[in-house]
Amino acid sequence: MQHTINSIAIVQSPYTQKFGIPRQPQLVLAARVCIVFHANISPDSVRGLEGFDYIWVQFLFHDVLDEGWAAMVRPPRLGGKKKMGVFATRSPHRPNHLGLSLLKLEKIEIEYGCVRLWCSGADLLDGTPVFDIKPYIPFVEARLEARAGFAVEPPPQLSVMWLPESHVDGLSPDLRDLIEQSIAQDPRPAYQDDPERIYVMDIAGYRISFRIQAKMAWILAANLFQAA
Amino acid sequence: MQHTINSIAIVQSPYTQKFGIPRQPQLVLAARVCIVFHANISPDSVRGLEGFDYIWVQFLFHDVLDEGWAAMVRPPRLGGKKKMGVFATRSPHRPNHLGLSLLKLEKIEIEYGCVRLWCSGADLLDGTPVFDIKPYIPFVEARLEARAGFAVEPPPQLSVMWLPESHVDGLSPDLRDLIEQSIAQDPRPAYQDDPERIYVMDIAGYRISFRIQAKMAWILAANLFQAA
Repeated sequence: MQHTINSIAIVQSPYTQKFGIPRQPQLVLAARVCIVFHANISPDSVRGLEGFDYIWVQFLFHDVLDEGWAAMVRPPRLGGKKKMGVFATRSPHRPNHLGLSLLKLEKIEIEYGCVRLWCSGADLLDGTPVFDIKPYIPFVEARLEARAGFAVEPPPQLSVMWLPESHVDGLSPDLRDLIEQSIAQDPRPAYQDDPERIYVMDIAGYRISFRIQAKMAWILAANLFQAA
Repeated sequence: MQHTINSIAIVQSPYTQKFGIPRQPQLVLAARVCIVFHANISPDSVRGLEGFDYIWVQFLFHDVLDEGWAAMVRPPRLGGKKKMGVFATRSPHRPNHLGLSLLKLEKIEIEYGCVRLWCSGADLLDGTPVFDIKPYIPFVEARLEARAGFAVEPPPQLSVMWLPESHVDGLSPDLRDLIEQSIAQDPRPAYQDDPERIYVMDIAGYRISFRIQAKMAWILAANLFQAA
C-alpha cells in the first residue's frame, strides 16, 4: 500500500551536518530549532497547542534517502559491534525513512499568518522536512516502567574543556552551551578511539575542532566559517 | 516536499468499524491486535525488539482519506463543543493522515519467514496500513510531568452491565473483557445523550447492541454476525 505525503514545515537547526547531532532528542537541551510551517498551513491549526509542554515531530531522515535501509543495523549504543533489527532501533536507515522526535515546545510564533514553533532538546538536521506535529499525552505515553532493551538509560557523557586558544570568550553563553552539550554526547563513530585524532564539527555557523581522550573532550578552536 | 511511503505491515484488529474504537491506545487493554508484516520485510528486522515492552506504531488513518483534513477539529474530550487546532489533537483529520500509537508488545511470532507482532491496548481499525515500528525509549519519552492541555487524564469510564437476555454466558472471557472495556470508553458521539437510543457496534465478528443512561451502559444483545 503506497501513500504520498507532503511536508507541512521545515526545520531550521544549528546542526548543518550529520556529525554531531545528538542521537536522541532531550539529550542536548540547548539544541534549539525552529519549525517553520509552510504558508498553506493556517495558524488555526496550532490553536491550543500552547497548553502542551512537549510535541511529537514526525519527519523525514532526508539526508540518508540515497543510502536506503537495512534489516539489521549497528546501534552506536552497543559500541557499533552488535547488530540489531532496524525496528528495534531508532536508526535512520529504516523503510520509509520516517523519524519521530519528542521536542520541548518553547514558544509558538505567528507572524504574517506564518507559524513557527521554537523547540529545545532537538536532534534534527537543518532542512529536515516535517510531516506532522502531535501533542504529547502523558497519561498514555509516559511509561516509566517500560522495559527498553539496550536503551535503558541515557548514554554516559564526556566532560568538556575549552583550551585557552579556542577563543571561547567570544562566544555567547547559548552557543557555548550548545557546543559543550553536543560534544559531551561523544559524537565519534562508535569504533573510533584515537586521542590524537582531531574531529571537526560544524554547528550554528561555527567550525569546532576537538580531541577526545578517555572521558574528556578538549575543544581546540571555534571559528566562524559562514553567516549563521 | 513530497515523499512516497509504502506499508510494511497490516493490522488485524477486532475493530472492524470506526464506531467503538478507543480514542487513545492503552485505554482498552483487552484490545489485542496482530501486526502482520509483508513478506518482503525479513524477520531480521525485528531482532532485539523482544527486549522492549512498548512499541510505536506509525500508521495511516486509511478510512478517513476521503474526508480530507481541517485546520480546526472538535475533540470528543471537550464534549464536541470546542474547536482546537488539529496539531493540538490526535484527530485523524490531519494533513497526511499519519497516526501514532503506543502499543504494548505481547509477543513476536515468526512463522515461515513472516513476522507477526501481537500487541495489546490497541486503538486501530482492522486493515490499517503500518509504515513503521519503533521501540519505546522511556528515558527520553516518559515525561510524567509534562503539561498536556485538555488531555491531562484518562476520560471517565462508564459502568457496563449485561442484561440477562444478552446471552453473555456464551462469550469467552477475553471477548467479554474486550466488549466491556470498549463500551466503558463511551463510544457515543460527544453531542448525543439519549437514554432511549440503541447503539450498535460490530466487534470481533459480533454485533453488540447497548444503551447508555447517565454513567451506565446496558448491553442488550451480542450476536455472532460473521465469521470472526
